[in-house]
Amino acid sequence: MCELLGMSANVPTDIRFSFAALARRGGETGPHVDGWGIAFYEGGRGCRSFHDPEPSARSELAKLLRNYAIKSRVVVAHVRKANRGRVSLENTHPFSRELWGRRWTFAHNGQLRGVKKLPLGGFRPVGSTDSEHAFCWMLGRLQARWRDAPKAEGLERAVAELCAELHGLGVFNMLMTDSRTLYAHCGKRLCYITRRAPFGIATLIDEDWRVDFAQETTERDVVSVVATQALTRDETWTEIPRGRMICLRDGEVRLLPDRARRTAPSREGTDHNVRLSTQGC
Amino acid sequence: MCELLGMSANVPTDIRFSFAALARRGGETGPHVDGWGIAFYEGGRGCRSFHDPEPSARSELAKLLRNYAIKSRVVVAHVRKANRGRVSLENTHPFSRELWGRRWTFAHNGQLRGVKKLPLGGFRPVGSTDSEHAFCWMLGRLQARWRDAPKAEGLERAVAELCAELHGLGVFNMLMTDSRTLYAHCGKRLCYITRRAPFGIATLIDEDWRVDFAQETTERDVVSVVATQALTRDETWTEIPRGRMICLRDGEVRLLPDRARRTAPSREGTDHNVRLSTQGC
Repeated sequence: MCELLGMSANVPTDIRFSFAALARRGGETGPHVDGWGIAFYEGGRGCRSFHDPEPSARSELAKLLRNYAIKSRVVVAHVRKANRGRVSLENTHPFSRELWGRRWTFAHNGQLRGVKKLPLGGFRPVGSTDSEHAFCWMLGRLQARWRDAPKAEGLERAVAELCAELHGLGVFNMLMTDSRTLYAHCGKRLCYITRRAPFGIATLIDEDWRVDFAQETTERDVVSVVATQALTRDETWTEIPRGRMICLRDGEVRLLPDRARRTAPSREGTDHNVRLSTQGC
Repeated sequence: MCELLGMSANVPTDIRFSFAALARRGGETGPHVDGWGIAFYEGGRGCRSFHDPEPSARSELAKLLRNYAIKSRVVVAHVRKANRGRVSLENTHPFSRELWGRRWTFAHNGQLRGVKKLPLGGFRPVGSTDSEHAFCWMLGRLQARWRDAPKAEGLERAVAELCAELHGLGVFNMLMTDSRTLYAHCGKRLCYITRRAPFGIATLIDEDWRVDFAQETTERDVVSVVATQALTRDETWTEIPRGRMICLRDGEVRLLPDRARRTAPSREGTDHNVRLSTQGC
């Protein structure tokens, strides 16, 4: 099973504290040795990403990022334990595409039965993972529905409906962003935390790193972090219900109503999630 | 005027020697202080890119890349002196898009009059540069013509025709790749060198770095480098004729026939190139 990390904030924020925990799970405190990647949105629509098919715990590039403060309002990161699709750069999450003049980024954990039968529109996978196929299918559906970017609320509902369809195919833990909103769908395991004033102290689970957020922030800062598993030991993380999606914008979290799932035509029962292997993505 | 650097090779090749020269032109030996970027293709279709709106000569990320051997068969790099489009991450070349399941990368030097009037298809700019608009227009035209990737020869002719149209709008020095072929169009200034056995010694113009390629290569290696200006002082670089395109594949260079230009409907005379400012891109 891969691990996901996402961030949404109302001010440019340094993700290194959380990324350090994720990076260690790529080969030290976790078994995710089949590559890693991270995408940072900076200054609005600008995005840069770093990918490495090497384990993050031993990656020169990951080491650089630990010493290099990139301040960002939206981040999507992933460490990979491969199951479908060989270990290679083109199969390393997160994936990205441009739609409506915005850079979209996508990372997935889980397996999706028969996802490659879903017909594609204008977006095609470069690599061979189920995950990238699912991403291309989602964007193709959105592009077919709207020639230009719709209002945020309509887009949220549409993304939730597409997630519900994919949830019907297996395990679909997903982070996706269009540079403004971070969409986080829980197929089986995904949790989040929102930090705001009064800020406290947090200690990583995976290494001996402690931060007093009160020293790093202003009173107006709101920062939410989404992860497969809690990253800190002295904070309370909230589990996202299975089959549900949250939208994060400017650090604020909103759980989308459950009705989005009921509109999906191909959704199956939820029990199969438990039976499926989640060894990879 | 920005500077371009491209490489095509028949074996995964370390670009650091050439990139060192380009990076120094970003704020030390050259005035290109408005950001830089480089895209590496690895293992076939996989691509990773590094972008920084900081001057490359002072960039932490550029310093990392000088110490980090990424072996690649196709590379596109750019240092920017901004004219159109503010200095920001989203305006930092090279730009990339996926078409037909391949990651395309594009970098441009020059100015194009009225390029933003060219109608776009499925690809839209994320930033505000003329260059990204031109790239989106080219890919939109290719996508409209072929649903799936055509044969290499047909694609080369089509790219040459699109370049000829853009050449009619101003200065269009360009590098573009679909991961297999590197297309290099000379609007005003672009040159190349092909290195093959028997390999010799080369010394950078921009810094005191000398390489004996015979020590770094095998007899079968073929590596071509394209750049705005020669990067080495003891080799003979070949100027690409103005208004012409070369295709590089597996390190081999082929100059496309001039007839591609004659088929372009909106191409204007060539003299205006000289009159136009080339201060930016």
